[in-house]
Amino acid sequence: MASASHAPTPLLKDELDIVIPTIRNLDFLEMWRPFFQPYHLIIVQDGDPSKTIRVPEGFDYELYNRNDINRMLGPKASCISFKDSACRCFGYMVSKKKYIYTIDDDCFVAKDPSGKDINALEQHIKNLLSPSTPFFFNTLYDPYRVGADFVRGYPFSLREGVPTAVSHGLWLNIPDYDAPTQLVKPLERNTRYVDAILTIPKGTLFPMCGMNLAFDRELIGPAMYFGLMGDGQPIGRYDDMWAGWCTKVITDHLGLGVKTGLPYIWHSKASNPFVNLKKEYNGIFWQEELIPFFQSVSLPKEATTVQKCYLELAKQVRAKLGKVDGYFNKLADSMVTWIEAWDELNPPKGGVPTANGPPKK
Amino acid sequence: MASASHAPTPLLKDELDIVIPTIRNLDFLEMWRPFFQPYHLIIVQDGDPSKTIRVPEGFDYELYNRNDINRMLGPKASCISFKDSACRCFGYMVSKKKYIYTIDDDCFVAKDPSGKDINALEQHIKNLLSPSTPFFFNTLYDPYRVGADFVRGYPFSLREGVPTAVSHGLWLNIPDYDAPTQLVKPLERNTRYVDAILTIPKGTLFPMCGMNLAFDRELIGPAMYFGLMGDGQPIGRYDDMWAGWCTKVITDHLGLGVKTGLPYIWHSKASNPFVNLKKEYNGIFWQEELIPFFQSVSLPKEATTVQKCYLELAKQVRAKLGKVDGYFNKLADSMVTWIEAWDELNPPKGGVPTANGPPKK
Repeated sequence: MASASHAPTPLLKDELDIVIPTIRNLDFLEMWRPFFQPYHLIIVQDGDPSKTIRVPEGFDYELYNRNDINRMLGPKASCISFKDSACRCFGYMVSKKKYIYTIDDDCFVAKDPSGKDINALEQHIKNLLSPSTPFFFNTLYDPYRVGADFVRGYPFSLREGVPTAVSHGLWLNIPDYDAPTQLVKPLERNTRYVDAILTIPKGTLFPMCGMNLAFDRELIGPAMYFGLMGDGQPIGRYDDMWAGWCTKVITDHLGLGVKTGLPYIWHSKASNPFVNLKKEYNGIFWQEELIPFFQSVSLPKEATTVQKCYLELAKQVRAKLGKVDGYFNKLADSMVTWIEAWDELNPPKGGVPTANGPPKK
Repeated sequence: MASASHAPTPLLKDELDIVIPTIRNLDFLEMWRPFFQPYHLIIVQDGDPSKTIRVPEGFDYELYNRNDINRMLGPKASCISFKDSACRCFGYMVSKKKYIYTIDDDCFVAKDPSGKDINALEQHIKNLLSPSTPFFFNTLYDPYRVGADFVRGYPFSLREGVPTAVSHGLWLNIPDYDAPTQLVKPLERNTRYVDAILTIPKGTLFPMCGMNLAFDRELIGPAMYFGLMGDGQPIGRYDDMWAGWCTKVITDHLGLGVKTGLPYIWHSKASNPFVNLKKEYNGIFWQEELIPFFQSVSLPKEATTVQKCYLELAKQVRAKLGKVDGYFNKLADSMVTWIEAWDELNPPKGGVPTANGPPKK
């Protein structure tokens, strides 16, 4: 299986956008310059639109603030969170590329155990371009890496794998803990470099973190909605989780793969656990209902596209989670709005978008 | 979660047996002396019973050859494979301890990346004594290890975990490949030390290798039957796979956990791929039916013990795999015989075993 892995990793510089949500000057890009400069950046400015965000010279970027979002989406802008990094999903929507990499502005270049700078983006591209194996676990992890393969007992009919839709990277230094764990273990740092990539098996949910995440927009983009968080909402810090659960259920249904593991980035700064607790508070309770819900979601055979799956999911969210809290009715509405806005900005190929609605046939 | 992990690892020297199947002198134990000498060994001599197996001095052991197996089990000895390392499961049956570690005699002490000898057994004990998390994936792997925890978004109700029944260790140097892969990649060596332990999620099957394996005999022992392989059978090298699939289905049903990852052993010698191909040939075909079978097995609520689960599984093997090949009817019979023999040698606590059958009530 290693043959494909021996080839040099394609840069995909015309096929990938880097999406960064931010409220501050993007000095962190200096450290990423050798790896990110060939790519186009989509910066989504969170919070006060009158503030100027400084981007280091030499980067090719477009920047959207709240005024831009409102202008472009009109009333549908209500589905994009305000004062929360969940707004990043607007960047997924306006991108015209096949792949997205999204990273937080407090994430720096990590080093591998040999002391070499890790090109996180290159590893994500490798992950996305090699198949996933969601139907059976391989004990030597990703069988498509150089020096690895499928072990004895792995069914031969499953060795082709399935297309990879998501590559979930990890973090050295500050681990992605919830507020209670941050409070209990303020000094814990992640120093363990685990040299593995693996497919999250079909039927298994995971906590998808948006800090260091890549995906194939064509395969799964419309499922990457980061929900309603932040200003005016009763919850925060569950944006990426929500997207992850929806995405996993849909990739499972459509026969796509989700990988996690390498690459690592260096997460520099723990966010304030007290502020976080306030944001997470409701989510900690609700989550106990959300997980059984997502574990039992079943999508109909007719749901053959991400959009159809997502709208079906919105229906089930309303039917089954509406009673947990009224928030989920609002979220279900937003999920529908998100898909409408997505389709408006990303008309089916061959169709012509018009000012008054979806493309005429 | 790290508090438990900071405690020194208990040796469990009176609660664990090391089971070794072999056809040769056990010189490999010299290298393991610092780690294995405190423990009792159960050696199962494969093949010619007239041959004398030399065990290095100072080890505490009992040794069983084919004559012993026949004498102890009578007609039920038919369930124990001959001329195949599958015979090791006889050792699981005669042990009176809570835990089993089994290792092949071509496996040596590996070194971790710092150059330190790896005490594989100690790591297996750590794995078995800390819980598993089969219901939701933790992206920082085993949350109970020092320096790790559950990440943001992991439901709090699932953080207690479930008891761990199986600890599956890995191999540096010669990877556990099937014959076709051995033939295609004769020079491939596993040099990647992945510093992780993880729970195989509920509902996911994996290829369990018997080379470096530990389990809790009280929790899962009767499912660890290594099937009918070797002399007089149409298949070999699927003994541990069979045990793994049966075990995983039963641990999933009973709410127990299976971990894989650390510890590594050094696997010194590749077996002959031509001989292996002959043994595996049928398995490669049959496996394509076995995996869907195990993926769809459903055990009834009344199956509340490993024995009940296993007998139910035997019934389903006969009903659904008998048509794949007559071999599976014979295997189903043997699965029943195995449980009968297990119960005879391991009478329910409080019962009194007699020479003529199961304990009188």
